[in-house]
Amino acid sequence: MAGPKVIICGDIVWAHEETKQLLGSIAEVVVMDSQTREDFLRELKPGGRYDGTVGIYRHNESANRIGVFDEEIIRSLPSTVAWIAHNGAGYDQIDVLACKARGIIVSNTPGAVDDATATTALYLTISSLRQFARAEQNIRAKNWKSGLAPAHDPSEKTLAILGLGGIACRLVELVRPFNMRILYHSRNPNPNALKEAEYFPAERVDEMYAQADILSVHVPLRKDTEGIVGEKVIRSLKRGAIIVNTARGKVIDEAAMIRALEDGHLSAVGLDVFPDEPNVNPRWFDFPQATLLPHMGTETQESQRKMEVRALSNLRGYLTKGVGDDIVPELKGTAVKPLPKLA
Amino acid sequence: MAGPKVIICGDIVWAHEETKQLLGSIAEVVVMDSQTREDFLRELKPGGRYDGTVGIYRHNESANRIGVFDEEIIRSLPSTVAWIAHNGAGYDQIDVLACKARGIIVSNTPGAVDDATATTALYLTISSLRQFARAEQNIRAKNWKSGLAPAHDPSEKTLAILGLGGIACRLVELVRPFNMRILYHSRNPNPNALKEAEYFPAERVDEMYAQADILSVHVPLRKDTEGIVGEKVIRSLKRGAIIVNTARGKVIDEAAMIRALEDGHLSAVGLDVFPDEPNVNPRWFDFPQATLLPHMGTETQESQRKMEVRALSNLRGYLTKGVGDDIVPELKGTAVKPLPKLA
Repeated sequence: MAGPKVIICGDIVWAHEETKQLLGSIAEVVVMDSQTREDFLRELKPGGRYDGTVGIYRHNESANRIGVFDEEIIRSLPSTVAWIAHNGAGYDQIDVLACKARGIIVSNTPGAVDDATATTALYLTISSLRQFARAEQNIRAKNWKSGLAPAHDPSEKTLAILGLGGIACRLVELVRPFNMRILYHSRNPNPNALKEAEYFPAERVDEMYAQADILSVHVPLRKDTEGIVGEKVIRSLKRGAIIVNTARGKVIDEAAMIRALEDGHLSAVGLDVFPDEPNVNPRWFDFPQATLLPHMGTETQESQRKMEVRALSNLRGYLTKGVGDDIVPELKGTAVKPLPKLA
Repeated sequence: MAGPKVIICGDIVWAHEETKQLLGSIAEVVVMDSQTREDFLRELKPGGRYDGTVGIYRHNESANRIGVFDEEIIRSLPSTVAWIAHNGAGYDQIDVLACKARGIIVSNTPGAVDDATATTALYLTISSLRQFARAEQNIRAKNWKSGLAPAHDPSEKTLAILGLGGIACRLVELVRPFNMRILYHSRNPNPNALKEAEYFPAERVDEMYAQADILSVHVPLRKDTEGIVGEKVIRSLKRGAIIVNTARGKVIDEAAMIRALEDGHLSAVGLDVFPDEPNVNPRWFDFPQATLLPHMGTETQESQRKMEVRALSNLRGYLTKGVGDDIVPELKGTAVKPLPKLA
């Protein structure tokens, strides 16, 4: 196939037809088949299989074979690489500053994950308040109702949101029928926020925490957000509050959260993410009041397909128009390399 | 305390203050303390502790000691009994036809359970579509993501509702942000149904089943609803559909549902109720794609208090006005016994 070379780094699972439609006629599509980082780095070199690559579709699944896109990989990419179209909202597996230094644009798939991830946050909220995960462990241990803990209706509760992007905006829509009070803190007010969501700037964020029955965390993992929900924040929540995390595990101080569950300051937590995935701190398994999921916030057939199509479309945008959508904030304003002239 | 005698049959857990406010000044409140049915029947007789009772507050919890309010108990009640204020939406533990024969009115607490039960149905729907219960079993078995099954977003799916009363109307509100198609069958169209819910009469109910991604069951248990979701109905659902039951276990043919999970016709089920509670058919524990709860649809502090207050208020209505609210359909139109004249 004529056209610039693009590599598919992490399998396309659902959008096979769409891949052909979006890239088949305009690019030479190479599936990354390296089984080790060494092989991947070697094949990036002149004469290698990935030499001359212009665009990369990337999914976190590729990290199982070649590791994350850290500075070593970014520095080893051919100078022809102009665009990395990441499949996912979170792009902490890509060293975007190293990309910036080399003029490589990174796009993600923000909107495509909103519904599935917000649905996960809603599920974890209901499970935590109603003590449903504990109840299911109980019935499967053949104990019927014995050992249930006091449960609460989500209705009329106060939900505090840390980080109001697309996912949290969707969560606000999903909880609207519960007539909750919605408070949020972000670096700046979100102009897309539903009008019922009340903004708390940094200097008043303590007030927000003090009123929360539920704290749902939606900030990306960055240097300045690592551990942002620490001992002080957790202790400033109302006694008996719950924490829901569908963002990244390292955003919360795990040890502080465990202490607060142990002494009852938190009544329950709902976690889709952990600091050292796929490893899970075994202490979590001691807490029946924790609802635990293996980072599957976006794992539905519909959303996975949507994300694949969105990432591929962003790459197609570059290949056809010289620029694609969904450029990550750190790379906005960086000059996009011109499209390669075809021979 | 002066006033007609009422017995509290099943403990008041949350509404202690409200009990005093609602009944304290107008009735002689006797807490039913019989540990066996024999004792209860004996104390109902002339000269017994419950002789002269006019009203009864009843909670299913009392069945643990004295059994359900079957024909034997109803026939043994003193002729003074005029009103049984049942705490709960379902009143299948009371023989209402035996009550009718004796001119005893039965009230239930329909509205008070709507929010908590509908929230349970929403939880079971999300868990079933997203395969979250399976995922939690998986992570707690230290398997992280291995063994997950294909998951689906609730968004844009077709939800079929069997029995559109207050609980299902609340469910329709709760799922509204998911932009589902809503179909329902009841004996008659519900004038309170949200306009987006499409009614299917009995002669077209097959059409409803054939379109359903989700079947959520909300009919009360009666002779004519026992087993109403049987082999034929289950097989007429789309392959891969899910069933959610927060009504009563016996409304569904359990063996047929198990067969459909075994051969994959159903992809998942979410069950809060079972045919022979508190016993659970151990076959259920073989299915990771079943989300199982121990009949706790209304078990939140807020809803339990609401239900207690509602049942007590219905009893107070009789004692103060000669008639209370929430009379069950089978007893609507039955003459209410006049209030006793106080000595």
